[in-house]
Amino acid sequence: MHIRELPTPALIIDVTAFQRNLVTMATMLPGRALRPHVKAHKCTSLAGAQAAAGHRAFTCATPRELVGMAAAGLGDDLLLANETLDPTRLQVLAAAQEAASITIAIDSEATLAAARTAGIHRVLIDVNVGMPRCGCSPEHAGRLADEARRAGIEVRGVMGYEGHLMMVADRAEQRAKVESAMALLLAAHADVGGEIVSAGGTGTHDLHTVGPGGVTEIQAGSYALMDTQYSTLGLPFEQACFVVGTIISVGPKHAVADVGLKALGMDHGNPNVAVRAGVDDPGTAADVWFCSDEHLTFAKVAGAFVGERVFVTPAHIDPTMALHDTAWLVCGDEVIDRWPIDLRGW
Amino acid sequence: MHIRELPTPALIIDVTAFQRNLVTMATMLPGRALRPHVKAHKCTSLAGAQAAAGHRAFTCATPRELVGMAAAGLGDDLLLANETLDPTRLQVLAAAQEAASITIAIDSEATLAAARTAGIHRVLIDVNVGMPRCGCSPEHAGRLADEARRAGIEVRGVMGYEGHLMMVADRAEQRAKVESAMALLLAAHADVGGEIVSAGGTGTHDLHTVGPGGVTEIQAGSYALMDTQYSTLGLPFEQACFVVGTIISVGPKHAVADVGLKALGMDHGNPNVAVRAGVDDPGTAADVWFCSDEHLTFAKVAGAFVGERVFVTPAHIDPTMALHDTAWLVCGDEVIDRWPIDLRGW
Repeated sequence: MHIRELPTPALIIDVTAFQRNLVTMATMLPGRALRPHVKAHKCTSLAGAQAAAGHRAFTCATPRELVGMAAAGLGDDLLLANETLDPTRLQVLAAAQEAASITIAIDSEATLAAARTAGIHRVLIDVNVGMPRCGCSPEHAGRLADEARRAGIEVRGVMGYEGHLMMVADRAEQRAKVESAMALLLAAHADVGGEIVSAGGTGTHDLHTVGPGGVTEIQAGSYALMDTQYSTLGLPFEQACFVVGTIISVGPKHAVADVGLKALGMDHGNPNVAVRAGVDDPGTAADVWFCSDEHLTFAKVAGAFVGERVFVTPAHIDPTMALHDTAWLVCGDEVIDRWPIDLRGW
Repeated sequence: MHIRELPTPALIIDVTAFQRNLVTMATMLPGRALRPHVKAHKCTSLAGAQAAAGHRAFTCATPRELVGMAAAGLGDDLLLANETLDPTRLQVLAAAQEAASITIAIDSEATLAAARTAGIHRVLIDVNVGMPRCGCSPEHAGRLADEARRAGIEVRGVMGYEGHLMMVADRAEQRAKVESAMALLLAAHADVGGEIVSAGGTGTHDLHTVGPGGVTEIQAGSYALMDTQYSTLGLPFEQACFVVGTIISVGPKHAVADVGLKALGMDHGNPNVAVRAGVDDPGTAADVWFCSDEHLTFAKVAGAFVGERVFVTPAHIDPTMALHDTAWLVCGDEVIDRWPIDLRGW
């Protein structure tokens, strides 16, 4: 099937660019040095490709992601890098421990108690390294680990996500700030113990010293597919995901494609759009005017016609994936496979 | 079941407020004067409640919404108020004409040709009344209607969505601008003919003269559930939809709930959040700091604790619905039913 024949809006993955991204990352961070983040794609088939590239341990953000990964045979080492109090979901995860390795992040007495009540065997201490989100204070990490161990739970180490540093434009400044954040995490690790020090993301994947005495693994996810925001950083990864649309209306100065905000993560703003584009051809970029629920209005490019295909590049890949149920795999202009985006929801 | 027992993030509908919204609207725009827009909720059960309130004709934005509405027995009069070129989907809609009344918007020779090829029986001419999106120029509408009729297609009238005027804050200015936009639509209708003149939305629902010689029906959708953006307009509708979350982490100055940007339409910005709230109690509002994929970070309210429930009010209801597969119906603190959000995707 040709890309032209896909029903639109169609989320496509350029397998050539995607595979190059996997190889680039696996060369820099081979095997267990990378714990790919499933939240960036919510797709067990894509995770399978990451496993084939050597990464058998995965990071998840929701219980459903863990359960789906375990069911797909990708349960060698699954980390819920997020807190949950939900007794039912924790029990489901506890039951999944029979067949998969499940580790849960905790950052408080309450999350420890919830994990213990559900019968979770293994936890990681989530440490706040500067971003105001989850994570206990570094000084509190050792005490929480002691409590967990007293409750008979294995404490595998620490994690600390420096998400506030992903988009620092100046690399020297970014490196220095990552080092300071990791000093907090390593201090917490000295109190906690365990073999895991988990941190990082696509924007800081090359700013960590991965190995003994430092961070042991990076949690990057967006590197595999990329988006317009990460593309501003000059990272060695290519755009491998687009939403293909159809021009459904052309006005005197504008054209309209059927890729609206219900097909795009919008928290990073508008996407990019190009006409006469392909996976190997940037085509002609057009100025985006605005997105509606099911429409993308953009400045008309000379010759634009109703029925013509456009390539839309999402501003934020993670929530874009969460809006589609299918990823179409393309090689050049040919559609060669489809992957269900099967880990959506909670 | 109590709201406290719902797995979070949980999209809830306050049935009391929802029913009040339906009654308020059905009193102002009874029966066929309102053609509720399904895109605002993507839920056949909710549409069934709108039908029970007297509205048996519906507006849809995607082929899947039409097909699902027809399958649910809500196919008395379905309008696809959007353009599509997709031959397969148009054929599915043509097949649905046996059991349902299907009308398709067209705004160009290309969209007319696609409808004719698929065997669509009835169309509406979509007219641009000032917003740069779909719709032919008013002067072109009559010619397009003539072409459709020559092809043996029934032309039921015109539609023109003044979406650019929904959020005009000054009501006198808004009324004047709506009148100018509708003058364009009525001029097009004089050329096109047919019994339908369809326009409007929640933000302009009371600014049209609905009846013979004017607009015959309003396409509002958001009125049923509402959001923080529409709530700024002083409309007679109440917030009837929230995303209930759980506080999963508390820091020195912030707290984190499990309602992230994958549970919220983000194109209108951050949601509102309140602690110690209920459907009948606004609770204590907290300043939202930022949303991550699965987290909402907000300023800590005194006494906030891990495990506490929060009420999050979406900034934009339509894309929020598109991210959830279930709407939980609540009456006070009791969960009394669940509706599948069954019309997602395309």
